[in-house]
Amino acid sequence: MTERLPFPFPVVTWDDDQVVLIDQTRLPDELCWRRCDDLPKLCKGIVDLAVRGAPAIGVAAAYGLALAWRLARSAGDDPVALLERLKAAAEILAATRPTAVNLFWALDRGTALAARLVAEGKNADEIGAALLAEAAAIREEDVAMCRTMGRAGAELLPDYATVLTHCNAGGLATGGYGTALGVIYAAKEMGREVRVFADETRPLLQGARLTAWELADQGIDVTVLCDGAAATLLRQGRIDAVITGADRVVANGDTANKVGTYPLAVMANRHDVSFYVAAPASTFDPDTPCGDGIEIEQRDPAEVLGFRDLRWAPEGVTATNPAFDVTPAELVTAFITEHGVLRPPFVDSLKPVLAR
Amino acid sequence: MTERLPFPFPVVTWDDDQVVLIDQTRLPDELCWRRCDDLPKLCKGIVDLAVRGAPAIGVAAAYGLALAWRLARSAGDDPVALLERLKAAAEILAATRPTAVNLFWALDRGTALAARLVAEGKNADEIGAALLAEAAAIREEDVAMCRTMGRAGAELLPDYATVLTHCNAGGLATGGYGTALGVIYAAKEMGREVRVFADETRPLLQGARLTAWELADQGIDVTVLCDGAAATLLRQGRIDAVITGADRVVANGDTANKVGTYPLAVMANRHDVSFYVAAPASTFDPDTPCGDGIEIEQRDPAEVLGFRDLRWAPEGVTATNPAFDVTPAELVTAFITEHGVLRPPFVDSLKPVLAR
Repeated sequence: MTERLPFPFPVVTWDDDQVVLIDQTRLPDELCWRRCDDLPKLCKGIVDLAVRGAPAIGVAAAYGLALAWRLARSAGDDPVALLERLKAAAEILAATRPTAVNLFWALDRGTALAARLVAEGKNADEIGAALLAEAAAIREEDVAMCRTMGRAGAELLPDYATVLTHCNAGGLATGGYGTALGVIYAAKEMGREVRVFADETRPLLQGARLTAWELADQGIDVTVLCDGAAATLLRQGRIDAVITGADRVVANGDTANKVGTYPLAVMANRHDVSFYVAAPASTFDPDTPCGDGIEIEQRDPAEVLGFRDLRWAPEGVTATNPAFDVTPAELVTAFITEHGVLRPPFVDSLKPVLAR
Repeated sequence: MTERLPFPFPVVTWDDDQVVLIDQTRLPDELCWRRCDDLPKLCKGIVDLAVRGAPAIGVAAAYGLALAWRLARSAGDDPVALLERLKAAAEILAATRPTAVNLFWALDRGTALAARLVAEGKNADEIGAALLAEAAAIREEDVAMCRTMGRAGAELLPDYATVLTHCNAGGLATGGYGTALGVIYAAKEMGREVRVFADETRPLLQGARLTAWELADQGIDVTVLCDGAAATLLRQGRIDAVITGADRVVANGDTANKVGTYPLAVMANRHDVSFYVAAPASTFDPDTPCGDGIEIEQRDPAEVLGFRDLRWAPEGVTATNPAFDVTPAELVTAFITEHGVLRPPFVDSLKPVLAR
């Protein structure tokens, strides 16, 4: 990779009436962009994980609504008819991935805005501009929230901290700054020394590819390890804190995140290492009471049987590939949010992030 | 792969005065053989993991002594001088890998035999033949022990059992029959239905490559999963028992095995799933009192940063790569050995396998 990205990373942007994604499936080998000029391309980008990470999916979905509104106008400019098409587009976008709640949150926010503006008698131009501004606002809010969260989280770390993380809850997973890795970036901005161990995170290796890449890009000392080796580091007392992101946190604090997070939380608990989940309020789902109600996406077995074009499992053998797991709330030391660090009992402390 | 292997698998054999190994680094893509006509080639085969798995390494080391004896005779046939060269060869073989105790056990057994025969006045031919016979005996004993262990282990399983395993403790890791997978083969021979979930076992993917291959080859239903997904299956109640092999079991029952075994044992314990370790007496180390005394091999970071010729981590990023971890004895439900199923308290029950 020759091109150096700005920071916060331009994970999802709007250019020339298109939604532009960094193609994260190709990182770190090459920096490619996916230009989505229709909804199927954007949906494919979400399904393929060209854009991934709950907050980044939310941003992409918000821009997707702006794109859908613009495209729908080829059939006419009646705001009521356009709103119907916008709602249909939202349903299509919502069907891309089942677990990340920010997707539904961003779609609800965009469609509600459009419905309100239609009711207020705004015209198609005004509503289209508002949807685009809303998407930009969601991204900017996300960056600002991540900075706030990052500073709150950095206060939890000792000087010269060693942090272990799983998957990529970084700039690439968000509007550009990062949730779990936002804590690292904030600590660095505050002049602290932080070292990171990054679980490689099979099957799609977001840790080895994306977390390692963006931390190294930002000058942070990062060491990759196999997911199964994290327990050994925790036992050896080499880790000051585990920090992960979340794809969905439900009302009681149960947390869906990339598969492998649950055993990591168990091991952190066993070795008295703090386990923090960094997530904005948009990742919290007040409508699901506990983790049993979270739908876990099952992905293509091919992701497990090899990587990219390389297949290492024998022909005729299959795989099971749950993309996420659920960490029970009692294993979470605290949630790092834009409303501060929320500690147990979560029934009280989560109220500000569960309010809608 | 076109050639079908016989069963028990010919993992390590002697042919035309050479030690012949199945090159397990190439499975399941191709079936290649490494013919070792000198000690450096055999050592490289062990270091490269062409032959791997504690019992198989023991068999390879025993054949290595027979090879060393034969090669040393180019410099003369004096048994006392040959014995010195044999001991030097044993030291070289012992330095290949630090964790598997069968390696040292097999080398001690071979050198002790040669020393006794030298003392008894046997000639170089007789001692060479005896070393070769000893290596064959170690392999045959291993197959017989694995069958015995397998039957004992199979009795622990319910009908229509679903077993989860980690790494490859199969025919390929042993003299040909397998320890953990020997339980599966024995259950099948006893007419039972067994289904297996195989952790892929990063970084070298022995589960996805070798366990999946040999189980499928033997007609066993096998499904691969990422190491981090095992916790989800255990929590869902889909696993009747976890069975792994071991690279070393020390006096108190602490067990070194492929990295990722320790968190798996913790998760099995958390979800009340039996965690069995299948290992012959040769894997038990009476001289090390507890797990803290086990040297853990640190392997090349490149194994973590990619696979074979494919590198997916960004340039300039490093990795930590402990090859094994230590499972505390209190997480082991029972050891499955050729002396039967040994349950806690291990201070009593392990006596027969710790006796030397």
